Amino acid sequence: MSGTVAIIGGGVIGGGWAARFLLNGWDVRVHDPGPEAASRIEAVISNARRALPGLLDVALPEEGTLHFCDTLAAAVAGAGWIQESVPEDLALKQATLAEIQASCDPGAIIGSSTSGFRPSQLQQEVPRPGQILVCHPFNPVYLLPLVEVVGTDANAGDFLARAQQCLTGLGMHPLHLRQEIDAHLADRLLEAVWREALWLVRDGIATTGEIDDAIRYGFGLRWAQMGLFETYRIAGGEAGMAHFIAQFGPALQWPWSRLTDVPELTPDLVARIAEQSDAQSGAQDVAALERIRDSNLVAMLRALKGQGWGAGQLLAAHEDTLRAGTDLGQSAGEVADPAQPVLTLRRVVPLDWADYNGHMTEAKYLQAFGDATDRFMEMIGCDAAYIAAGGSFFTAETHIRHLDEVHTGTLIEVRTRVLQGGGKKMHLWHEMRAGARLLATGEHFLLHVSLETRRACEASPEIDAALRRFARAQADLPRPEGAGRGIGAPR
Amino acid sequence: MSGTVAIIGGGVIGGGWAARFLLNGWDVRVHDPGPEAASRIEAVISNARRALPGLLDVALPEEGTLHFCDTLAAAVAGAGWIQESVPEDLALKQATLAEIQASCDPGAIIGSSTSGFRPSQLQQEVPRPGQILVCHPFNPVYLLPLVEVVGTDANAGDFLARAQQCLTGLGMHPLHLRQEIDAHLADRLLEAVWREALWLVRDGIATTGEIDDAIRYGFGLRWAQMGLFETYRIAGGEAGMAHFIAQFGPALQWPWSRLTDVPELTPDLVARIAEQSDAQSGAQDVAALERIRDSNLVAMLRALKGQGWGAGQLLAAHEDTLRAGTDLGQSAGEVADPAQPVLTLRRVVPLDWADYNGHMTEAKYLQAFGDATDRFMEMIGCDAAYIAAGGSFFTAETHIRHLDEVHTGTLIEVRTRVLQGGGKKMHLWHEMRAGARLLATGEHFLLHVSLETRRACEASPEIDAALRRFARAQADLPRPEGAGRGIGAPR
Repeated sequence: MSGTVAIIGGGVIGGGWAARFLLNGWDVRVHDPGPEAASRIEAVISNARRALPGLLDVALPEEGTLHFCDTLAAAVAGAGWIQESVPEDLALKQATLAEIQASCDPGAIIGSSTSGFRPSQLQQEVPRPGQILVCHPFNPVYLLPLVEVVGTDANAGDFLARAQQCLTGLGMHPLHLRQEIDAHLADRLLEAVWREALWLVRDGIATTGEIDDAIRYGFGLRWAQMGLFETYRIAGGEAGMAHFIAQFGPALQWPWSRLTDVPELTPDLVARIAEQSDAQSGAQDVAALERIRDSNLVAMLRALKGQGWGAGQLLAAHEDTLRAGTDLGQSAGEVADPAQPVLTLRRVVPLDWADYNGHMTEAKYLQAFGDATDRFMEMIGCDAAYIAAGGSFFTAETHIRHLDEVHTGTLIEVRTRVLQGGGKKMHLWHEMRAGARLLATGEHFLLHVSLETRRACEASPEIDAALRRFARAQADLPRPEGAGRGIGAPR
Repeated sequence: MSGTVAIIGGGVIGGGWAARFLLNGWDVRVHDPGPEAASRIEAVISNARRALPGLLDVALPEEGTLHFCDTLAAAVAGAGWIQESVPEDLALKQATLAEIQASCDPGAIIGSSTSGFRPSQLQQEVPRPGQILVCHPFNPVYLLPLVEVVGTDANAGDFLARAQQCLTGLGMHPLHLRQEIDAHLADRLLEAVWREALWLVRDGIATTGEIDDAIRYGFGLRWAQMGLFETYRIAGGEAGMAHFIAQFGPALQWPWSRLTDVPELTPDLVARIAEQSDAQSGAQDVAALERIRDSNLVAMLRALKGQGWGAGQLLAAHEDTLRAGTDLGQSAGEVADPAQPVLTLRRVVPLDWADYNGHMTEAKYLQAFGDATDRFMEMIGCDAAYIAAGGSFFTAETHIRHLDEVHTGTLIEVRTRVLQGGGKKMHLWHEMRAGARLLATGEHFLLHVSLETRRACEASPEIDAALRRFARAQADLPRPEGAGRGIGAPR
């Protein structure tokens, strides 16, 4: 699903939305009267191009086009989605939304990025309130999947469902609030911590760096994968949440936090925070910190995907959607020309596959070839169900030739030939390319095994037939240069 | 650094301490009068054995021994560290600490795991207050590095420094609070969120599962690597923290959170939370959730290590400490017998190297061989400084034979032979073993390159000499079976 989106307001959040839509194949029109909007948006998109495409194990659709529009009317005319991200000022937001509705398609979805206002407030001054809802994202918008979706009774019919479907198509997780409330969910939790942290700095208990360490070396790691309640459920043990609350609830009444006051933001306190923050993070400028943050997020999200958990599970689901309907979603029988090498991998080299110079590291060549082998196995019927029933292929030998280097962000493809296949054996030849450039070859000899005995045995008749069909159809191709070769160093 | 530790109180926290000390080579004595303490501690240690040893890219020292002691006096006598983790009740803690001091070495360090009490409160009723300090860890203690260290003026001389050094030796990050305060740092932040989250559930705004999603799909991922202030520094842009506060500070005064009250924990509210938590997490029992959590944490911590950031940076520093003084810390000239294959990797297969059956996956064999190659390069002088100066080796070809399977948690070693070395060339032969069992061989042909031209060139005279010395010394070893072989499938 894609189309045309209008981004109204070109700050970091508007830029993040522009990047997420653009890299998912939407045409993007941006309107922001500020003189720096274009360069700011280009900077965010450039960060997004560095981090997002490789986050997934399958390539994104082709990028859409990006236009900057001088007038709001030109930006929104004909757009299917309009995202408002102007500064957090209710009157300004209301006026902007009214201006949007004067020019936009009445069937378009208008999402507001507001952190604090309720949708009913945003719907007050417009002719078509039912067209507006809150879609509150989190920075960096192109990487973090959370978007809080809040509507009112004015949003009729399938309006909310359409909006959520569209956000899911962008790889996001629309969290629909059942009831509107100031600041939605996440920012209420954030503000509670922010307030307490300001007290700790003001009272000289800890510096900003120490508070960040208290978070990132401890509960931050818990929260990135399980959140608050699931973590406490574990702490409560098999006795359950009620037991946990009975045990730890009373502490709530103790004076453990400064709940009743808001610290005054005196010039002294602001200066102290700024100084401590410089001491903590000043060695890197903000542009460098953004890239570090993005690299960390990509690595952690992909780590969670490897575990099939949390935000990593969202990635896996999004990949399945992207694969469906492409060559990579085919079964062996659907392959148009089995006499040619088969496309088994099409992805962008992710940030966490690189050395400090941005080159793909040695072991990731085998990772890519292994992923290609897995995909080929799926195509011939050795899929999750077959493996769960007790059969699979194990790699016995691998020969990789590293022919050229490749940087993160590059689109790579693997095409696969069957040199021999049938019975217990599968002998594959992978070629990895970036465009026409041959990066590596991978020769792999696999044996079909019983997962119970861990010994070689015949594959199922269906797999056997599919393998032999490829081997026969490709038998007339010239033998690949380098196949069967050993590492030829003189003794 | 290791010795004997006494763990007083055998709950989840005491068990986590026992595991962290034990797996870092300390002898552990546990005292807890409860009938379930032993089985609970064994369960925690079993979780820790599954997750911790492979977290690092180098093996931990040999495990210490574990003893359960019937009396507190027997547990603490002669111990160098005593960790008190009895329930959160001030009178009980004070009585326990007094009992500890009646039998322990006056030079021992006594740490209390208290979440809420100040060290001055714990030091009140004992003869030697200066021996006691707060060491507050976070669950799971064997994986999360954070430990809050809080002392008073009674802790004289090098007492605090000794304590911090010992905790660092356990791979932890001692965060020393400059001033005592109820609940230290992290639990104050946690309580602020917990209170706000309880309001959201009570008011029917969100379920426990929705709140957890709002955390783990959004700011939880930010906090796992950067914390609060560094994240906001980025949000503020190059204008800095003072600008950020000027922009977002006013929202603190808005009614975005329920600061002034504590929700009453009525039976209805407790039941609602318990039901929602069952709906969210009830498909897994707590033992399964613990393993999922640990796998996630290991994967994310290792992902951060790959980025050299946050808690991952702590891991890298701890690895350097563990490697120093072992064979893996040697330079080529220090190798006792260069005529034998050289130890280049000694590690435990980590949780994130496994398929869902717990077997090491294909690409991780090359990861291990690549790590072994990196270590060998360091030994011959191709270290970080040499690479920074513009020279390195690139792998041109790799031939792996997968001979046997290996599970997560297994200690593996790689030993490396130089089949040819000198000039531009380096031809290595790795053998990977678990005990005597040969798991895989890796044959690797590398070329020395200029990182500027990306072309082959001669290595430095020192590297050339070190390589030739190994090649010459090992020339009389029988040629390894399989070296130079291609994948021998019939055409």
